[in-house]
Amino acid sequence: MRGKTFIISGPSGVGKSTVLQALMQRRDLYFSVSATTRTPRPGEVDGVHYHFVDTAAFQEMIDADALLEYAQYVGNYYGTPKRYVDEAMDAGRDVILDIEVQGAHQVCGKRPETVRIFIAPPSWAELERRLASRGTDSPEKIAQRLQRAREEVACAADYDYFVINDCVETAAAELDAIICAEHCRPADRMALLQND
Amino acid sequence: MRGKTFIISGPSGVGKSTVLQALMQRRDLYFSVSATTRTPRPGEVDGVHYHFVDTAAFQEMIDADALLEYAQYVGNYYGTPKRYVDEAMDAGRDVILDIEVQGAHQVCGKRPETVRIFIAPPSWAELERRLASRGTDSPEKIAQRLQRAREEVACAADYDYFVINDCVETAAAELDAIICAEHCRPADRMALLQND
Repeated sequence: MRGKTFIISGPSGVGKSTVLQALMQRRDLYFSVSATTRTPRPGEVDGVHYHFVDTAAFQEMIDADALLEYAQYVGNYYGTPKRYVDEAMDAGRDVILDIEVQGAHQVCGKRPETVRIFIAPPSWAELERRLASRGTDSPEKIAQRLQRAREEVACAADYDYFVINDCVETAAAELDAIICAEHCRPADRMALLQND
Repeated sequence: MRGKTFIISGPSGVGKSTVLQALMQRRDLYFSVSATTRTPRPGEVDGVHYHFVDTAAFQEMIDADALLEYAQYVGNYYGTPKRYVDEAMDAGRDVILDIEVQGAHQVCGKRPETVRIFIAPPSWAELERRLASRGTDSPEKIAQRLQRAREEVACAADYDYFVINDCVETAAAELDAIICAEHCRPADRMALLQND
């Protein structure tokens, strides 16, 4: 059976990567690697952290409609190549796209069957606490991130699912249940019986 | 948080009650008890196996729109009173309605938010084997049940989920995941964050 694609969005500081790590302990998933025109940082490996490409190659992907979504950020392009997503799904693996709400909107425009899951903090106070405890952002930057988080959560009403990351294991179990449930849709399952 | 209602349908012989028993080992659910005008059989307890009522009382429920669905079968009425379903949901319990496809259609006409799950056999040959192994039906009756099963499965395309009962524990785990996932819908969950 072909794999499915799941978009995971959520504000900065919500603990998305920790939840995704816990989820990957529970089931095999292909975590999509973005393409970017930005220069690799020390330690970053091509094909693992990003597919590093030059601007001409990225533009070719745009022209060939070879990206599920893309955006420009601080002068560099970032995007999701269709190729690796499709290869994984063809091999029967489910795909996780860790992208923000605008990217999710682009993907669903091209592929409405994509399942969208939003990961939210248990409260605004807790999100602020998590951002502050990272110790990397100024109070102004944290205020900006909180404002952005409120805008992102407002977009989450369009998502299929809304998982609150209060406890990492509970959030991972809910993501696991959502993926399991989405594989029980009649469109996929009825064929199994009819082919009998 | 208010409970949700889940309809479970599936052909005779599919093993629905075994799967539901396994599901109830995993989570607390209120199993809806039907009202009927038929006479109790020896050992049947009012309020446990059915709510036994007379025809006048059943007609009153129809007139008062106090039933989620009802049907006549061999001269007797059978139906699902709204009252116990609503009491359970108000108490935060999820409700299971074990009803067939026409009843499911009636319930969703009144309450479109109801989640519909169809339980199917792994194959027609296996369904026939399960029906025969019960030893209660004649070959003609089994042929009738198989024909009816094919008609019911044809209606399952409208259902939200399609669970194949190949292994009871797998089917119960899938039902469990579906119920968990349905509690992660933004309409229910976003309020938890906004009330912060």
